Amino acid sequence: MNGAESLVATLLGAGVDVCFTNPGTSEMHIVAALDRSPQMRCVLGLFEGVVSGAADGYARMAGKPACTLLHLGPGFANSLANLHNASRAHTPIVNIVGQHATQHLLHDTPLRADIEAIARPYANWLRTSSSTSEIASDAIDAIVAARTAPGYISTLIVPADFAWSEGGSVKALPTLTAPRRPDTNNIERVAAMLKSGLPTCLLLAGNALYGAGLAIAGQIAAVTGSKLLAPYPFARMERGAGTPLVERVPYIFEQAASMLKGYRNMILVGADAPRAYFAHPTKGTVPTPPNCEIQVLANPDEDYTEALNLLADTLQGPRAASSTIFTKKAVRPPVPQGAITFPGLAAAIAAVLPENAVVVDEAMTSGRGLMEATAGVGPHDWLANTGGSIGIAMPLAVGAAVACPDRCVLCLSADGSGMYTLQALWTMAREGLNVTTVVYANRVYGVLKREFSSLGIGDPGPRALNLFEIGHPDLDWVSLAMGMGVPATRVSSLETFCTALRNGFASDGPTLIQVDV
Amino acid sequence: MNGAESLVATLLGAGVDVCFTNPGTSEMHIVAALDRSPQMRCVLGLFEGVVSGAADGYARMAGKPACTLLHLGPGFANSLANLHNASRAHTPIVNIVGQHATQHLLHDTPLRADIEAIARPYANWLRTSSSTSEIASDAIDAIVAARTAPGYISTLIVPADFAWSEGGSVKALPTLTAPRRPDTNNIERVAAMLKSGLPTCLLLAGNALYGAGLAIAGQIAAVTGSKLLAPYPFARMERGAGTPLVERVPYIFEQAASMLKGYRNMILVGADAPRAYFAHPTKGTVPTPPNCEIQVLANPDEDYTEALNLLADTLQGPRAASSTIFTKKAVRPPVPQGAITFPGLAAAIAAVLPENAVVVDEAMTSGRGLMEATAGVGPHDWLANTGGSIGIAMPLAVGAAVACPDRCVLCLSADGSGMYTLQALWTMAREGLNVTTVVYANRVYGVLKREFSSLGIGDPGPRALNLFEIGHPDLDWVSLAMGMGVPATRVSSLETFCTALRNGFASDGPTLIQVDV
Repeated sequence: MNGAESLVATLLGAGVDVCFTNPGTSEMHIVAALDRSPQMRCVLGLFEGVVSGAADGYARMAGKPACTLLHLGPGFANSLANLHNASRAHTPIVNIVGQHATQHLLHDTPLRADIEAIARPYANWLRTSSSTSEIASDAIDAIVAARTAPGYISTLIVPADFAWSEGGSVKALPTLTAPRRPDTNNIERVAAMLKSGLPTCLLLAGNALYGAGLAIAGQIAAVTGSKLLAPYPFARMERGAGTPLVERVPYIFEQAASMLKGYRNMILVGADAPRAYFAHPTKGTVPTPPNCEIQVLANPDEDYTEALNLLADTLQGPRAASSTIFTKKAVRPPVPQGAITFPGLAAAIAAVLPENAVVVDEAMTSGRGLMEATAGVGPHDWLANTGGSIGIAMPLAVGAAVACPDRCVLCLSADGSGMYTLQALWTMAREGLNVTTVVYANRVYGVLKREFSSLGIGDPGPRALNLFEIGHPDLDWVSLAMGMGVPATRVSSLETFCTALRNGFASDGPTLIQVDV
Repeated sequence: MNGAESLVATLLGAGVDVCFTNPGTSEMHIVAALDRSPQMRCVLGLFEGVVSGAADGYARMAGKPACTLLHLGPGFANSLANLHNASRAHTPIVNIVGQHATQHLLHDTPLRADIEAIARPYANWLRTSSSTSEIASDAIDAIVAARTAPGYISTLIVPADFAWSEGGSVKALPTLTAPRRPDTNNIERVAAMLKSGLPTCLLLAGNALYGAGLAIAGQIAAVTGSKLLAPYPFARMERGAGTPLVERVPYIFEQAASMLKGYRNMILVGADAPRAYFAHPTKGTVPTPPNCEIQVLANPDEDYTEALNLLADTLQGPRAASSTIFTKKAVRPPVPQGAITFPGLAAAIAAVLPENAVVVDEAMTSGRGLMEATAGVGPHDWLANTGGSIGIAMPLAVGAAVACPDRCVLCLSADGSGMYTLQALWTMAREGLNVTTVVYANRVYGVLKREFSSLGIGDPGPRALNLFEIGHPDLDWVSLAMGMGVPATRVSSLETFCTALRNGFASDGPTLIQVDV
C-alpha cells in the first residue's frame, strides 16, 4: 500500500467520503488511489475557489467534513478566499495539498512555493507529512482537528514521493472529543438576566441556529419573552413555519443599532458580540446600546445545546412550553404579479419555495426583505456568507446539493459576487445538481456605491463609478450559464420569475434565472 | 492632502500611471483620490486573479510597474496565483492592499485577516503603513523595491484611517539603482568556453531575450557558433524575422534532454539551469548531460546587456558581425487549408500574425509546433507562463494590450487554463482592448492525462478520467465570451480560422475564437 492509498483509505474509514478537487501532476498518485476507491465521491471544480466553497457548503449541511485535493502552492492559494469564509463559519474542512517530491524541492523549479506559509493564515491545523508511514496518522490528526468544536480548517501537505512510495497503512478515527462543557457560572448569570424582566436578546451562532439547539432556544425565548437574533454573518439557520423565529442583525450599522436599541441584555450563544463590518471616520463600531450588558452563555468551542438545556433546567418552565409557541405560523403568500420589484421578488420566492429547501444567500443589496418574506413559509435552511469575501454562493450551493441530494437548493447571487466563482455553474451541470440559481443583475457593486457616499466622501465621480458599475458591457448570465451547460432564462415579470423558479425546482439538474433589477 | 491623495499623487509622480483594481469598502478613500486623478488609468477586473495577471502583462511590455489596488486579505488572496507567476517572471508590481482602520482591527470582524501573512509568500518587499505621513515614502520604497533588478513584487498595506486622515505629502522617486555590474571573472570564463570549440549554448532570461540584450547575444552566437536557448518558462521573447533565433527548452523532460544532449557548455544569462517541472519516481530532474559544464555569465540581478557587451568586447569579433547573421529570414507561409490539425493551426497563425503583435501563449498541449511555425514571420513578442500556475493568458493579454495600445495582442489559451480567469474577457470588452483570444477546446487537462500515464501509474480509469476531462458538459466559449460582451465565433476549418484571426486583428476591440481540437 502506497502513501496515496493509505491516505484515501484512512479518509474513507473516518467517514470523509466526498472529495472536492482540482488536482495537478504532483497529486497523480492520489488521483490513482481515488480512481480505485468508488466509495469516495470526487467532484471536480474548474477553479479552486469553487472547490473550497463547495467543501464549506457540504460540511454546513452534512455536519461532517469533506476533503479537498489541491495542487501545490498556487492552486491552494486560489482556494483561500472561500477558506476565509469557511473559517469564519467554523466549517470543518480537511485540505489535502500536494507538494513536489522532497528531492525535487532541492531545485528551484517554477511551481515551488512555501505551501505552509500560504496555508497558515487559514489553517487551524497544518502539517507536511514527513514520511509515507506517517500519512495515515497525519490524515487522522487532520480530521480530528477539523472536527473539534466548533469546527476548523485542517491542511495536510503531502509530498509526492511519500504518496507514491510503499509503506502506508490505514489508521482509524478515534472517538471524537465532545465540545467543552459550558461554564455553569455563565448559565446562572444568564438565568438571572432572563428573570430580570429587562429587554433581553439571545444572539445565536453555530448549531444553536438549527436542530435541537434552536428548538430549546425557542422554548426559552417563548417563556422568558426574550428575542432570538443571529449575527449578520451566520453559517446555517433553520427557519420557516414551526421553527422559532430568529431575526438577523442587519449589515448596515444604523439599522443594526436601531434593531438592538432598547435591549438591556444580550446573551451570546456561540456568537461574537455584533460589530460594524467596516470602520467609519466618524461613526461607531459597536451597534449595541451602551447600557446593554453582554453575557456569554456558551463560547464558540462549548456545547451550545447543552448550555441551552442547562439554562432551560435552571429557568424551570421552558421544558413545558410548547415548541410551537413563538414560532411562525405557516404563511404561504400568493404568487405576486407584475413588474420586478424587490418586495415582489422576495414575495415570489416566498410563494414558491419548496419545503425542505436549502437557500444560499449572497443576494447582497438585492436581497432586501428576503428573510422577512420567507420567515413563515415551509421549513428550510438558509446559508449566508460568513466572512464577507464575495463569490461564495454558487460554490456553497454545489456543496449543499452534494450533501443533500434530495433537497432543492436555491442559490441567490448578486452579479458582482457571482462573477468571482461562476465556474461553479459547470460543476452543477457536471454533477446534475438540483440547484436553481437566481442572479440579481443590477450591474453594480451596490455596497461600494452606497458606502462611498456613506463614508462622507461625497458623490462618486465618473471614474469612481466606473469601478463600481459592472455594466458596459452588461453581463449576460443566460449566455454565461449556457456556456457551462446550465439551462438559463431571463425574466422580466414576477409571474415569469415564479414560473422559472418552479421549473428550476422541478428540474433534476441545475438552472439559472437572470433577473434584471 | 489625505493619505489616499498622497499615495495616488506619489505613484503618479513616480511614473506609475496604470492601476488594475477591484476595490472594496476599505479602499474607498483611495478610490476617491483616483476619481480626481485622471492621469491614472484605472482598469477594473471582476476577479483579482485578472488584476494581478494584468499587472504582470503590463509590466512585461511597458518595462515599468503598474499598481494594483486590492481589498483586504481575501481579495488580495485571490491575486496570489498570478503573483506566483509574476514573481517567477521577475515582473515589477506594486500592490496596494487596503486594510481595516487600525482601531477596527481591535475587533474580530468578519473580514479581518492577517494580510501580511497572506502577502509574505509572494512579496519581496512588504510593509504596512504606520501613519498617514509615511504613506508617500512607503509608496516610493515599494516602487524602488519593485524596480530593483531583475524586478520584484512589492506589497504595501494601507489602513483605511491612514488613507482618510489629513497629513499626507508627495514624495519623489529617487534615481533608481542600476542592476549590479556583472562579475568580470565570469565573463573571462565564458569567453574561454566560447573559444573552446566545444558545443555551447547560451540560456537567456529577462531582458537578454529582447532589445539590445538579445541583439548582442545574437551577434555573439553568430560569430562563436553557439546556440541561443530560452528556458521553457520565459517572461518575454522578441522573435521573428530579423531577430536572433532563440529556441525554447521543451516542457517534456525527455524532449528537453534530447535538445540539450551534446552540449558541453551551458552559459546562463540571467537564467536558472533547466530542471524538470515535476519529480518522477524513476526519471531524473536535470536535463543537461552530465558532462555539460554550466557557467553563469550574469546572475538575475546583474546587468545582462552589460555582461553580453563585455563578453562581445572580450571575444573581439561580434561587434563587427552583421546583426542579421544567424537570424531568421522572413518566411510568411501561405494560408493553410482544410481540417483542423495542430500543424495547420500553427501554420495559420504564422500565415496571418500581424507585424509587431504580442503573442500570449498558454496554449498548453495544444500549442505544439507554434513557436517553430512562427519563428520566421514578422517581428513580434511572445509572453509565456513563467510559474506554471494556469489561468494567466487572458489576464496577461489584458495587461499587454493596456501597455501597447497600438499593437495587436493574440491570446492563445487552453480551455482548462482559460476557465481559471475567464473574467478577463469582460475587462477586454470594457476597455475595448484589441485582443484576439483563441481558445483551444480539447475538453481535457491534457497535461494531467499524459502525466498520469508517464508517471508509470498505468492507464487512468473512469474516475480519474472524470477529473482530467472537462467535457460533459462541454464548455461553449462562444456563449461564455458573448456573455461578457466579447464577439466570438467557433471555427471548424483552417480557412475559417484564418479569416476569424484576421477579423480579430482588424477589430478595434476584443474577439474570441473557439477552435475544437
